[in-house]
Order: sequence, then structure tokens, then C-alpha cells
Amino acid sequence: MLYIIGLGLGDEKDITLRGLEAIKKCSKVYMEAYTSLLSFGITSDGLSKLEKVYGKSIIVSDREMVEEKADDMLLEALVSDVAFLVVGDPFGATTHSDLVVRAKKLGVDVKVVHNASVMNAIGVCGLQLYRYGETISIPFFTETWKPDSFYEKIRRNRELGLHTLCLLDIKVKEPSLESLCRGKKVYEPPRFMTINTAIEQLLEVVQNHPDSAYNKDTTCVGLARVGCEDQMIAAGSMEQLLTLDFGPPLHCLVIVGDTHPIEEEMLQFYTINSS
Amino acid sequence: MLYIIGLGLGDEKDITLRGLEAIKKCSKVYMEAYTSLLSFGITSDGLSKLEKVYGKSIIVSDREMVEEKADDMLLEALVSDVAFLVVGDPFGATTHSDLVVRAKKLGVDVKVVHNASVMNAIGVCGLQLYRYGETISIPFFTETWKPDSFYEKIRRNRELGLHTLCLLDIKVKEPSLESLCRGKKVYEPPRFMTINTAIEQLLEVVQNHPDSAYNKDTTCVGLARVGCEDQMIAAGSMEQLLTLDFGPPLHCLVIVGDTHPIEEEMLQFYTINSS
Repeated sequence: MLYIIGLGLGDEKDITLRGLEAIKKCSKVYMEAYTSLLSFGITSDGLSKLEKVYGKSIIVSDREMVEEKADDMLLEALVSDVAFLVVGDPFGATTHSDLVVRAKKLGVDVKVVHNASVMNAIGVCGLQLYRYGETISIPFFTETWKPDSFYEKIRRNRELGLHTLCLLDIKVKEPSLESLCRGKKVYEPPRFMTINTAIEQLLEVVQNHPDSAYNKDTTCVGLARVGCEDQMIAAGSMEQLLTLDFGPPLHCLVIVGDTHPIEEEMLQFYTINSS
Repeated sequence: MLYIIGLGLGDEKDITLRGLEAIKKCSKVYMEAYTSLLSFGITSDGLSKLEKVYGKSIIVSDREMVEEKADDMLLEALVSDVAFLVVGDPFGATTHSDLVVRAKKLGVDVKVVHNASVMNAIGVCGLQLYRYGETISIPFFTETWKPDSFYEKIRRNRELGLHTLCLLDIKVKEPSLESLCRGKKVYEPPRFMTINTAIEQLLEVVQNHPDSAYNKDTTCVGLARVGCEDQMIAAGSMEQLLTLDFGPPLHCLVIVGDTHPIEEEMLQFYTINSS
């Protein structure tokens, strides 16, 4: 049996009793490092805290392992109970459908243990989940690569008065361009997109679109470390949010659509410079 | 302090360690019965199971209590730690923004403990969360009241190739019309909408719209008891799903938009009559 277990958003205490019970049964416990590196601070003492609470040693699997060596893990799961831990929910912002498909093709039974993900925890800012349109992802721009297919989605959401959740790029264990050229992988340090960078890119993109789906005065909500003890939420215009320092990762951004009275009251609590 | 604690979707084991820790600190523990009655079977031995795991007695608060007497609970939370338990996530399908607004106005500190909700756990069917459009709610039709404002939202989602999550009506502790006329409240037995009823209503509504955003051949996924041990997921045309019995509540339905290859592979596992 392969247990794919969501760990939630905060720290080692966000696992469910069901998830913990499953881990305790497993002979091996893997954990994806792709996003967890940032949220759980795996490089520091985060991992040992997890291991202490879970009562098991954890094999941290980087992106390559998950993509290239998943079959080894799945073969183990054919003969014993194996846990694969993921930050958030197994089918949240980062999906693990591909792993499920591979498991089922190999005849491995799969059980999913759900948990909170940013896709529902975002509701904490007070904007109702059923009033969101399509979620978008904003990738890091480079000098020569500035993909802006998200613009059209924002425009459509705004036409309908819907909120837009923007998931911001994270780069963990990306091989450096230089190292790829030399044929030997050396990795860039991890990077995560801040709310500030996201807004700068959004404002850069809108200049190429005469129909201006938004501008610097558009109301947004910036959320950092959703679900963690030190989460930060601030509402204001894009221009206002640009002046804030939201601190450590992960960050996300909501472009606010039309609001109902109860949504407005909730936003008030987070509005910059509100009395 | 008021702790608003998500219990997740399954049973008493779906609470997080963080949620459990908060409950143990609280002098009083309330639980909303509006949806929990159905998911946790509060009328049977479900409540005592919860109380046993949580180590506290639970005051089940029906809808009236939450709406009319919330201030009493909030005043208690001014002077001691009080927990308010909700099924799923505090800001999931059923939102508790109004309670947060009232708490903050009274000067009560609020802490939210997130958990899975149907809004992210729906990802288990293999359709990617970021490819969903606006979520809709389908209310029970009566002979004389058939509101169909959801049709327009489905149409827009389908035009964009997006999936549509349909949340299905539940009626818990609704005063009967007869009793309201007599001035003394007597309650109807709880009712939840099945996937079958939802599809019947969807097919009834589309007949009034010549642009037919969907029809009996449109692919859907029916999900019952998402996140529970006995969850049931089936994919097929509306007509095919109509022939199935999905069993006890809660049910929800996804109208499938354009699919990517990995989504198709996942749907295959749930497709009726697939080889």
C-alpha cells in the first residue's frame, strides 16, 4: 500500500491523526522536498522535528527522485506499506496525479490522506472560495523569457467579477544553466517569488495589453505563510502592497474581484492604513 | 481566544495535532451541527467517538444557535479559550466569515486551524484544481421554485474548457412550512441532495436554454463521501451516472471541462464500464 499523506501548511503539528496512524504502520517514509524545503525548513532542524513527532526516519526525495526513481518506491509499496509525505494536500496546488497513475498501473493500492492546502486555506482572507475564478501561476521572468498567458485568465476572471488566486513560482534544486552546459549538474540556491516581484511582473505585463484588466490601484490581498503561526495577510492596492515586506516564504496573492458586504468586512481587518 | 478548528472530511481521526492540542486547552467546545450531522452522524454514536478522541464534552450547536446565540459563545471566548469545531475547513464550502467578523468586532482573538475541505479534496478525482472555474451550488427544486442561476456559470466555465464543481444542497433542521404557519417550529427531517437528483435538475434546467451548455452525454464525475474510508468516485456521462446508487451523503458532482492527458488517465480509473 502507498499512503500519500498531506502534511498541511504549517509545521509538524498539522498532520492529521489519520496521517500519523498511517505513517506509524509504514516500513519506509519518503517526503517530497520540492515545496517542503521552503515550508518546513528541511535544511535546518525542521526534518528532525518531523521525525520526532512522526516517530520514523524520513527519506527526503528531491524532484529528480520523485520523477525518475518513483518506480523503486512503488515496487516497495507492492510488498509493504510505504508513506509519501507531501506539503499541503496531495491534490492541492502541487498535484501528485502522475504518481497515482504510475502506482495504479503497477497494481499498487493507493490511499490518500487529505489535509489543508493553499487552495482552500486562502479562504482565511475572507473572500469566499466559490467566488474565485480560474487559479493562475506566475513564473519568474528572465530578461528574455516573460510568458504572460496568465494575463488572459485574470482578464476573464475580472470581467466576471471573480477573485483570482495567483500561485507564485518556486525554484528548488534547479540545475544552473552554466552547469548544464558543462554536463555536470550544479544547483541554483532555492528561490521563491515574493508578493512584490509578482506585482511588479503583473504591472509589467499589463502594459502590453491596452484593455488593462487591472492597474496599480487594483485591490489585492497578499498572504505569506498561510496556515503558519506567523502568517501575514495584508489588503490594499497593488501599489500599496509593493511597499510591504512580507518576510519568508511561501507567498501568494489574490486579485480581488467584486465583493459582497461580508467579504468587505473581512478585508477591512487586513487593509493597510485602515483605522 | 476563539479557536475555529476544521475537523476535515472523514471522521474523528481527521483532526490535526494542532487542532487537538487547541481543543485540550479550551474550557468549552462547541460544534456546528449544520453539516456535521450528516458527515459525522452526530445523532448516533459519532458524537461520543469525537468526545472520546478529543477528551472533551462537545456542545452541538444547531444553525439557530450559531446564528442567534453566537454572541454568548463569543463573550465566553473573551475571558477563556473556546473551541468552535467545523466540518472540513473553517473557510471551505461552508464559510464562517460572519463568525470571525462578529468575534473581531467584540475584540475576541481568533485562531483558525485549517483542514481539508471538499474544495481541495475534490482533487482526488484527478482533475487539476487550477483548471476549475467558478464553483456552483445546486439548490433543491420545488414544484414552484426552480432557481437556475447556476446555469450561466456552468456555461461560462464550459466555454473556457474549465471544470465545474457542483456543491449539492443539504437541508438540516429546516422548520416545516406547516409549522411556521402555526407559529411553532417543527423541523423537517434532514435531507441531502444526491448526485442523481442534481443531474435530473441539471437536465431539467438545460431544456430552457437553447444554447445547451451540456447534455445527457456530458462527462461528469460523481463523488460521494470524499475523504471518508468508503468514498465512492465514478466518472461517466450524466445519463450513466443517473443509473448509479452513490449511497449515503455527502455527494458532490464535477462537470468535466477540457482534459489534459494526465487528467484523462486518472479519470480512466473511475470510468464506468471501462475495461
